[in-house]
Amino acid sequence: MKHLAISVGDLNGVGMDIILRCHDEISKFCSPIYCINQTMLLKAIKLLNFKPTTSMNLQNVKGKFEIEVAKVTASSGEFSYNSFLSAIELCEKGEADAVVTLPINKEAWEMAGLSYKGHTDMLRDHFKADAIMMLGCEELFVPLYTEHIPLKEVSSTIQEDKLVTFLLNLHNSIEDKKVAVLGLNPHAGDNGVLGDEERVIESAITIANAKIGKTIFEGAIVPDIAFTPHFRKNYKYICAMYHDQGLAPLKALYFDESINVSLNLPIVRTSVDHGTAFDIAYKKVASTTSYINALKSAIKQSELRDD
Amino acid sequence: MKHLAISVGDLNGVGMDIILRCHDEISKFCSPIYCINQTMLLKAIKLLNFKPTTSMNLQNVKGKFEIEVAKVTASSGEFSYNSFLSAIELCEKGEADAVVTLPINKEAWEMAGLSYKGHTDMLRDHFKADAIMMLGCEELFVPLYTEHIPLKEVSSTIQEDKLVTFLLNLHNSIEDKKVAVLGLNPHAGDNGVLGDEERVIESAITIANAKIGKTIFEGAIVPDIAFTPHFRKNYKYICAMYHDQGLAPLKALYFDESINVSLNLPIVRTSVDHGTAFDIAYKKVASTTSYINALKSAIKQSELRDD
Repeated sequence: MKHLAISVGDLNGVGMDIILRCHDEISKFCSPIYCINQTMLLKAIKLLNFKPTTSMNLQNVKGKFEIEVAKVTASSGEFSYNSFLSAIELCEKGEADAVVTLPINKEAWEMAGLSYKGHTDMLRDHFKADAIMMLGCEELFVPLYTEHIPLKEVSSTIQEDKLVTFLLNLHNSIEDKKVAVLGLNPHAGDNGVLGDEERVIESAITIANAKIGKTIFEGAIVPDIAFTPHFRKNYKYICAMYHDQGLAPLKALYFDESINVSLNLPIVRTSVDHGTAFDIAYKKVASTTSYINALKSAIKQSELRDD
Repeated sequence: MKHLAISVGDLNGVGMDIILRCHDEISKFCSPIYCINQTMLLKAIKLLNFKPTTSMNLQNVKGKFEIEVAKVTASSGEFSYNSFLSAIELCEKGEADAVVTLPINKEAWEMAGLSYKGHTDMLRDHFKADAIMMLGCEELFVPLYTEHIPLKEVSSTIQEDKLVTFLLNLHNSIEDKKVAVLGLNPHAGDNGVLGDEERVIESAITIANAKIGKTIFEGAIVPDIAFTPHFRKNYKYICAMYHDQGLAPLKALYFDESINVSLNLPIVRTSVDHGTAFDIAYKKVASTTSYINALKSAIKQSELRDD
């Protein structure tokens, strides 16, 4: 069984709630290593009125503080970072096959003096690599060409050489399946009447396919047609040019099921695709679907690398 | 029963196929007036192997030509325009309560020397009014603040006075229900980190609500959260800042059901939300859901004006 290093996320949020409710179930298909110390684990267990267990394999993470449910605190921010770093190190040392992360709180990271915008940002810096962010589930995955930038800056990022590199990196990171690549403009520009970035996108697709030696990428696809049932039944991967172009339809269709995958890195990392959900933390009601899917996807990604 | 003027669309496309298959069904809940002449009607009936009928109320439209299934022709473009104009005139004369349009072919309009980009564009010119384009179905309607412009031009259109006018016109055109208004940027700008157009949007919302005297508009809403099941269950109307922001998730969810409504005009106009579908024209397989919904919505919009 694959060994998965679990970064526990912000302890004031929904992470340990989900982790503890799923431990028995996930132990059937993977060997989880929880990046948390015994003291903090017991505090979380107590909050949930669960019985202490010795069946959980822990990777010690330094730090002790009071869990304050639904509060943004520096100590909780720092601990969640240390748990994440510890999970990465387990992979780097070959003691785990992949990292799976529960949600951190960005403000808590700021309070702890951490300047990263999130997990993916930290991974880029840690590995000095162009991580590709992909969200989705087995029904539909959406890799993003751009992510957290203002909408008005998206157009200027559509450059042929950068897009070719992105597409080739993407192809190296996922299954050998065809990928629909979206245009940028309404109706994919309508032959240039509504914008002309599609010329660049189509040129990049042609070059990338030639380098691969077969037609992997198809486009530029009309963005508001790509997610209709008739179109998407033929594609597991739909590559978006910007954040909401891909994530608004994805989350409309598969909100609970979706996960976040970091591609093009030395290690495998998957994550739940939701936040700390302070309002329902430690209430035993949060959906566990995204967590289970993140674990299964981590196993699958890891197996892809075994081939 | 409401009298609905039916603009038959491009006769080489799927319009008459849908119209003729639905005539008996829709006659139960409305009085359709078909804007087509007897000769062209009989040609369409023959192509479908239907029996000629005298039960259809026609508004004569000049023009005779051979129907060439799935072809873009000037004669077909011109006829579809004349049918549309004739339907509008029926409303203007008070002989119909609303116009319902089947799809035209933009290239055929061009070949016929017509410069309009489509129905809505023609309506704006005909009535010299700022028509608002709204797509959707009873489960979810998406009014668009901007439509057919390049993505890179969207940001500069976010201006307070224009947005206030748009919101007030929108409120005057639909039911008195709350409307979620989307932000422009990922995470609705994340407090200015990912763009600041949301300040303008929020200011316009505040002004519009004050003028109306109650909270109709809410936002700026995070775009990729707005269409999740949890969020949208509380809103029938989600107003998008640009074309694909609203239409990609809408069509992901409700492709077959959706229709197109033109608001803020002297007349009521609804339309199917699909194209001429040349590939399946006269094959009796095209979905009729959008057409039926467009008729029902036209009746509802007309009744709103009776109040």
